[in-house]
Amino acid sequence: MSILMIKKILLDGSPCGKCAQAEEILKKRGFWNRIDRVVIADETDINSEGMKLAAEKNVKLAPFFIIRGDNGDERLYTRVFEFIKKELESESAAQDTKSVDSVNFDVSKANNKFAGLSPIEILSEAQNAFSENLTLAFSGAEDVVLIDMASKNGLPFSVFCLDTGRLHSSTYAYLDTVRNHYGINLEIFTPSPELLEPFLKEKGMNSFYQDGHTECCGIRKVEPLGRALEGREAWATGLRRDQSPSTRGNLMYSEQDEGHLKKDGLPLVKINPLLDWSSQQVWDYIRKNDVPYNPLHDEGYRSIGCEPCTRPSRPGEHERAARWWWEDGTKRECGLHLK
Amino acid sequence: MSILMIKKILLDGSPCGKCAQAEEILKKRGFWNRIDRVVIADETDINSEGMKLAAEKNVKLAPFFIIRGDNGDERLYTRVFEFIKKELESESAAQDTKSVDSVNFDVSKANNKFAGLSPIEILSEAQNAFSENLTLAFSGAEDVVLIDMASKNGLPFSVFCLDTGRLHSSTYAYLDTVRNHYGINLEIFTPSPELLEPFLKEKGMNSFYQDGHTECCGIRKVEPLGRALEGREAWATGLRRDQSPSTRGNLMYSEQDEGHLKKDGLPLVKINPLLDWSSQQVWDYIRKNDVPYNPLHDEGYRSIGCEPCTRPSRPGEHERAARWWWEDGTKRECGLHLK
Amino acid sequence: MSILMIKKILLDGSPCGKCAQAEEILKKRGFWNRIDRVVIADETDINSEGMKLAAEKNVKLAPFFIIRGDNGDERLYTRVFEFIKKELESESAAQDTKSVDSVNFDVSKANNKFAGLSPIEILSEAQNAFSENLTLAFSGAEDVVLIDMASKNGLPFSVFCLDTGRLHSSTYAYLDTVRNHYGINLEIFTPSPELLEPFLKEKGMNSFYQDGHTECCGIRKVEPLGRALEGREAWATGLRRDQSPSTRGNLMYSEQDEGHLKKDGLPLVKINPLLDWSSQQVWDYIRKNDVPYNPLHDEGYRSIGCEPCTRPSRPGEHERAARWWWEDGTKRECGLHLK
Amino acid sequence: MSILMIKKILLDGSPCGKCAQAEEILKKRGFWNRIDRVVIADETDINSEGMKLAAEKNVKLAPFFIIRGDNGDERLYTRVFEFIKKELESESAAQDTKSVDSVNFDVSKANNKFAGLSPIEILSEAQNAFSENLTLAFSGAEDVVLIDMASKNGLPFSVFCLDTGRLHSSTYAYLDTVRNHYGINLEIFTPSPELLEPFLKEKGMNSFYQDGHTECCGIRKVEPLGRALEGREAWATGLRRDQSPSTRGNLMYSEQDEGHLKKDGLPLVKINPLLDWSSQQVWDYIRKNDVPYNPLHDEGYRSIGCEPCTRPSRPGEHERAARWWWEDGTKRECGLHLK
Repeated sequence: MSILMIKKILLDGSPCGKCAQAEEILKKRGFWNRIDRVVIADETDINSEGMKLAAEKNVKLAPFFIIRGDNGDERLYTRVFEFIKKELESESAAQDTKSVDSVNFDVSKANNKFAGLSPIEILSEAQNAFSENLTLAFSGAEDVVLIDMASKNGLPFSVFCLDTGRLHSSTYAYLDTVRNHYGINLEIFTPSPELLEPFLKEKGMNSFYQDGHTECCGIRKVEPLGRALEGREAWATGLRRDQSPSTRGNLMYSEQDEGHLKKDGLPLVKINPLLDWSSQQVWDYIRKNDVPYNPLHDEGYRSIGCEPCTRPSRPGEHERAARWWWEDGTKRECGLHLK
Repeated sequence: MSILMIKKILLDGSPCGKCAQAEEILKKRGFWNRIDRVVIADETDINSEGMKLAAEKNVKLAPFFIIRGDNGDERLYTRVFEFIKKELESESAAQDTKSVDSVNFDVSKANNKFAGLSPIEILSEAQNAFSENLTLAFSGAEDVVLIDMASKNGLPFSVFCLDTGRLHSSTYAYLDTVRNHYGINLEIFTPSPELLEPFLKEKGMNSFYQDGHTECCGIRKVEPLGRALEGREAWATGLRRDQSPSTRGNLMYSEQDEGHLKKDGLPLVKINPLLDWSSQQVWDYIRKNDVPYNPLHDEGYRSIGCEPCTRPSRPGEHERAARWWWEDGTKRECGLHLK
Repeated sequence: MSILMIKKILLDGSPCGKCAQAEEILKKRGFWNRIDRVVIADETDINSEGMKLAAEKNVKLAPFFIIRGDNGDERLYTRVFEFIKKELESESAAQDTKSVDSVNFDVSKANNKFAGLSPIEILSEAQNAFSENLTLAFSGAEDVVLIDMASKNGLPFSVFCLDTGRLHSSTYAYLDTVRNHYGINLEIFTPSPELLEPFLKEKGMNSFYQDGHTECCGIRKVEPLGRALEGREAWATGLRRDQSPSTRGNLMYSEQDEGHLKKDGLPLVKINPLLDWSSQQVWDYIRKNDVPYNPLHDEGYRSIGCEPCTRPSRPGEHERAARWWWEDGTKRECGLHLK
Repeated sequence: MSILMIKKILLDGSPCGKCAQAEEILKKRGFWNRIDRVVIADETDINSEGMKLAAEKNVKLAPFFIIRGDNGDERLYTRVFEFIKKELESESAAQDTKSVDSVNFDVSKANNKFAGLSPIEILSEAQNAFSENLTLAFSGAEDVVLIDMASKNGLPFSVFCLDTGRLHSSTYAYLDTVRNHYGINLEIFTPSPELLEPFLKEKGMNSFYQDGHTECCGIRKVEPLGRALEGREAWATGLRRDQSPSTRGNLMYSEQDEGHLKKDGLPLVKINPLLDWSSQQVWDYIRKNDVPYNPLHDEGYRSIGCEPCTRPSRPGEHERAARWWWEDGTKRECGLHLK
């Protein structure tokens, strides 16, 4: 088996930025020696080896990777994370997952340490500690940066998403985009008919506009979250203090999550690496790192949740004002993060 | 307790059509004698008793119904079906449901009889035979006419809808509209996480665009349908021959449904009252009878199913072409109605 | 002729805020003595005179105004500005418009004075100086606050809007909303076929995506603006410094507008009352004063212009980034405000 | 100068259908001898000359055309009509336009002849008679088939479109699509400010919902149509009898258009080649001939006009019911086609 990485040189002679980024990720992950040959696609020379390969394989993106098997078969990747997951991590990664038990994770000691670290470093520490027993909560919105960071760290982790059955069409498509981009197994949890069916029969589909969202979130999010966390030691969220001064102002980098207990009755650890970041910092990261994002963000949405309970943000209002807008503004939480 | 019905006389002196229709329904159902007094709201006379009542109660619709309890409490209804369900049927209806067993329903004899009957008469026969053990399949689209007809017949029946978790936002809101308009307990069935979660983890949210819709429909519709039919003897659908000459051309008014067996291993009876109607006849009925319909029908949609698998109809194409349009046109079925 | 104002008392006994606001406007404008009688609509008493009138006239809003002519005819208004414009100003306002000539308006002296005034006071000064020879530029977006302020000042002014032929459907409807709400004659200026037709024949409808927006704005906005300003001495805009640090950072409260000359070759005066306000202040004013706003602002749009050249704002970007986004970010101007 | 046509052979060995169609058009038009060399792009052989050219030029569509000038310059076309217009017709076509005078066109004789002809043949006869003095009325909707037919006939003609200033965004983009696809100079006519501005100042933007559409259509369509027809002898429309039995039932293939007189006071000739076709036939033609169509047709629209006066078609209603739906159903005409 041999692996080729095709890198581009642009028309003006400068190297392609995404190629450099991919090389950096491979080096950081210790996979650079697995690349057998680097081929240059020189946009100024249609006959350069890389340009011919791109034409032959009908590839428009750079960099790309070709894996040639011994029996002549080929596989081609245009996404570096997917390439790493499927070709490089396959043997090594999964086997020797070692995770600390949540009870052995010293939250206050960690918080002292985390206070001096960047979000990606905080996440790296958590991945180191809990490996695949750390699961990232992905809501289909800006918390995608956690997945990006965890993938760059190259350490094992899990990811889940709660499909409430009422997400936007764009969000569903976006979940697949993220899944493919990072080559991850996105675990999806869905509501239980035992709870949902009697609720819908009694109250109809949109009772939250009258009764408030608590009961619906309880069935569509909180109960499935319990199942999503089963067997884990820790979870990471994209919570930020600036999202809601009243409900999220006192968050810490890591917490004993008394709201979510393991089977042994002990609390999980909850990690909030983005705690200190502003919305602006999150978006600067997304743009700078070409992180795929939910297309609703381009249609005026800032905070994204379920379709009936989310609207575009309006000028001069806080981002969380666009969630459950018919309810009292001081408690815009779905119940996932309450103690 | 006393019951008032307020009927309107229009500015030009003519009686209100919806009031006449409501009166007719009440008479047909045998509830007319339950109305203690009819009050006229004469649009030409703001001081007529009915006009004053409308102003006092801030009611814009006619007819409306006021129920005055002995202890001075009042309840007000602007929808005749809801009024009937909640006030008039309450004691009587549910109690003495008698249903034949599906095995005792002679399909070929019934089909001979049904051939000479209108859809509402066919449905009435089925309601008579099976009572609440007949359940209407309601998809959130034009099959609402079945609910309208069954409500007018005034005989017991059940209704269910399969919430796949991927319906349009408009459809969810519409389910509540229908529920309230007819005063019915709409039973909702949702997919089982045991089947759905592994499927989504393996294939992502939108795998049907690659793999075809069969697997997804199997999990989101076919399995819940099984639960919806549990304990019933018969079900009624809005299937029409003209929807799909290739798959629905040989339908009959009633069938032994070998695809859906009861616990005793015997088939349910399936009733298709709209079999002979064209799309035009369905829509003439909806408009003439002021039946509430899915607002998507006003945005160019004809056949409505799940959001990712439905698009507006295009000029010069068959209505079912707007479902699973990326697949072979000869078999546009979701698996609910296959033998 | 007699004039009634109907004011409401709410269910909890408190007076209606909009009624108080309307009374204040009438007093400030010197029209309070024109109200012959104030009638109370007490929500706790359906038989109060005002409640009966509301029911009789089928009015849902408070306050409202009834004008009873001597020959028994009646006119009814629910919008205080429209009522003032159509009933109270009619005789007086238009006749004795006295305006200074732009050449006699000392810009630097004015700027010194304006620096200590609020936007509504700046506008009042300009209305005092120029009367109807001051025209407000209204784009169908947040600059509506100028119309609100000028109407509250109760001094004469004109208003115009440039209909480029490519505005959003929502903007067109909104222009009518503003027109009716304030009872104003909104002057609309449209592109000249002599310029537009050859341009479209040569380049098609959407050439701006290739060629840049300058030529199109020149034909659809700049030329009609010239006609809109003909015969005026001054115009007022909603320009704010924070909209564009690079192009609007050096704006002053008032300017000799060398870009727009009168027939005598002398410059018009341009007034920018909102200069110092942030977007947040504009929106606080809109919400506090119940100013009608373009519904696109509720769909994620901040800066609104022509439909093909405007998109919803994205998280973490400046509001003007959503205009002509395919062009260089440093000069997002349409040519109306260049020197 | 030399001209290459690149034709494709598909993976399964069959020839590309669009290539064959283009060849047929070139032959019919008498331009086939202008092609110097036909190059094959064989999808099964990446090294075939055509495949290499496609890769080199980054072309994804077949057929395509390369024009190599004597001084080494090259031009490339992927649309056969644009290629013909810009490269082949340039010298010949425009020069010797000979047109009959409308007064010399015998309408009743023509109608007898036309009764036995197909639409494309009727149009060919009209193009033969009037050359560029025949102008096609293109509304941005299904009447695009006239442009397709006239282009295939290869005889001179003109085309115009009335841009009312209120068309859909999609329609504006579509006008450019058609313009580029057929390589035509689409003449655009826009409303005159002398008429439009006073109308809008008096009545606002959307007065048609109250007053009816006649006045607005008069200003935005009928007056510009007069200018569009100036200097022409004949015009062709996409009118069909089945669009409106009440107003279009008595149409003829050709008419003396008393509603549109030339400067000499004599009527233009009006040609209606699609008279006999049903909507279904129009759409079969569009699909079979890969005619570009307004994307609104894929969103449920059938008859397309101005944005505020058009809505998607609803199930069971006639296509013209979606125009001016708030007005009396018997006269859904804009005034362009009245006598």
